[in-house]
Amino acid sequence: MSDLPKFVQVNEEGPREGFQIEKGPIETRRKIELIDALSQTGLGQIQVVSFVNPKRVPGMVDAAEVVEGYARRPGVRYTALWLNRTGFERAVATRRLDLAGTIALTASDRFLERNQGRTMKENIAAQYEMMRQFKQHGVPVRRGSVMSAFGCNYQGEITAADVLRQVEAILAVAGEHDTKIEVLSLADTMGWATPRSVQRLVGAVRERHPELEIALHLHDTRGMGIANAYAGLQMGVAIFDAAVGGLGGCPFAANQGAAGNVCTEDLVFMLHEMGIETGIDLDRLIEAARLAEDIVGHPLPGSVKTGGSLDAIRGALRGGAQ
Amino acid sequence: MSDLPKFVQVNEEGPREGFQIEKGPIETRRKIELIDALSQTGLGQIQVVSFVNPKRVPGMVDAAEVVEGYARRPGVRYTALWLNRTGFERAVATRRLDLAGTIALTASDRFLERNQGRTMKENIAAQYEMMRQFKQHGVPVRRGSVMSAFGCNYQGEITAADVLRQVEAILAVAGEHDTKIEVLSLADTMGWATPRSVQRLVGAVRERHPELEIALHLHDTRGMGIANAYAGLQMGVAIFDAAVGGLGGCPFAANQGAAGNVCTEDLVFMLHEMGIETGIDLDRLIEAARLAEDIVGHPLPGSVKTGGSLDAIRGALRGGAQ
Repeated sequence: MSDLPKFVQVNEEGPREGFQIEKGPIETRRKIELIDALSQTGLGQIQVVSFVNPKRVPGMVDAAEVVEGYARRPGVRYTALWLNRTGFERAVATRRLDLAGTIALTASDRFLERNQGRTMKENIAAQYEMMRQFKQHGVPVRRGSVMSAFGCNYQGEITAADVLRQVEAILAVAGEHDTKIEVLSLADTMGWATPRSVQRLVGAVRERHPELEIALHLHDTRGMGIANAYAGLQMGVAIFDAAVGGLGGCPFAANQGAAGNVCTEDLVFMLHEMGIETGIDLDRLIEAARLAEDIVGHPLPGSVKTGGSLDAIRGALRGGAQ
Repeated sequence: MSDLPKFVQVNEEGPREGFQIEKGPIETRRKIELIDALSQTGLGQIQVVSFVNPKRVPGMVDAAEVVEGYARRPGVRYTALWLNRTGFERAVATRRLDLAGTIALTASDRFLERNQGRTMKENIAAQYEMMRQFKQHGVPVRRGSVMSAFGCNYQGEITAADVLRQVEAILAVAGEHDTKIEVLSLADTMGWATPRSVQRLVGAVRERHPELEIALHLHDTRGMGIANAYAGLQMGVAIFDAAVGGLGGCPFAANQGAAGNVCTEDLVFMLHEMGIETGIDLDRLIEAARLAEDIVGHPLPGSVKTGGSLDAIRGALRGGAQ
């Protein structure tokens, strides 16, 4: 337990993860309402939208209007996702985002082929092209990301060696652009991770690259999200992506907690109860989770928004209310 | 990780936990159907009913008929819960249960007072009375249990010292009846545990009583169930109670995974993926979880029944189906 961090950075991805997958349609003003509520919880970073093909992702057709609409709050970074140059240029055009570039590769060539229609080689070439775009627009790059790092529905097991090859490729792309990668995100894109594989992979990457700070992006497809986060914490991981309420699950199974990201308020509950600081007000975050549930119109998988925080009980006991 | 057990005993409590709290009414034959399905998964122990006051727990009004109805399968222990002599005698009268006595105390005096209307002293006296009953009917006693061992909604924090006092009381009761307690169950009755408190409490009890095998009964009220189980595994815990589908949640919030026990198939998924044996067929268990969902008529919180097992994907990949 000596490796447990004292402070954890929680990156909120609920609006992007959720609204791109919800059947909806959800009114633009309600998306903005959630982002504004999240910005008042103490979260330092909120991924608000993705700039993707609206024919494929109709929930993101209003991405620019959403970015236009929220009230920028000092101390909060508002980020967005894009998959190619067109999307990136749309993000730039808003002039209201805290743009940061990521060199993003994928550890499964079959997943890459099926989901992005690219070979590994083409994917690396695409990262070079994006690096040129980032430089042209003065967008900093300090993060690399490896998708499907823990296993793949189309390929099966992914080994640490598979992941490390992608890490080397990320560092090579960065090196050719005089860019220093500081954070490496390992994404359990298809919910294959268990606490043991988190421990093993984080250990293997950290051993090879002690200079990289590791971040985890965990999906809760098989209910392992919080346990995997705990295994990451034990390995010293101090940056986690998460989604308020567990947003992002398949809309046809969202009330079963099927496939969303690890739930922000459940994660923050665990962190605070273990004495790890986040700068986040858990009770406000729980309110935001309940708002998210109201906005999507069906139950979301997170537990703490129903179970309640323990600080609320402690406060009532101190006040003699019980 | 060196402490991870090679084999874990999973005690199924779904029928008892679930049917006593579901609004229902659920037909007796359907309760029996679930028990029979569970008995074919490789589970070694199934708690099938509780013998409690049917006015307070109408879902258990048919407890004796349920016990009468299932097909006893060799290798499976069928257990039941009772809270007093009347309930125990009803259990004995069925002649179809694998009765085992437990000396059960509670670490929170306020919880005890509110829920059983007893003081600590009266509760200990009640255990003496139950021990006489167990002896009279030839029912073995090898298990002690401490409820609300991790925190209490009416009292707040529970310390390791509070729990250890109850352990001493359990051992004293056992000692006076020439009985050896082999297993000590620590129950997170109100969902206060986090991985850190699991580690601390299991460590404290094990240090004082290395002769006791520790079991964990974890509720998933705040989404920590699987992470808490993992923390227990790391401390060498090899006996867990669990409920198929996560049965046992509040019926008004069951689809939000609010308050049920840790979900059996999610737990077994984690164990198998970490190389720990259980003797359980996960795919059959997932079928039983889906049956449980059909029987209660609303979504249950478990994730693996929706996300699916990885072995199913691996099998399809080997078969060239993908």
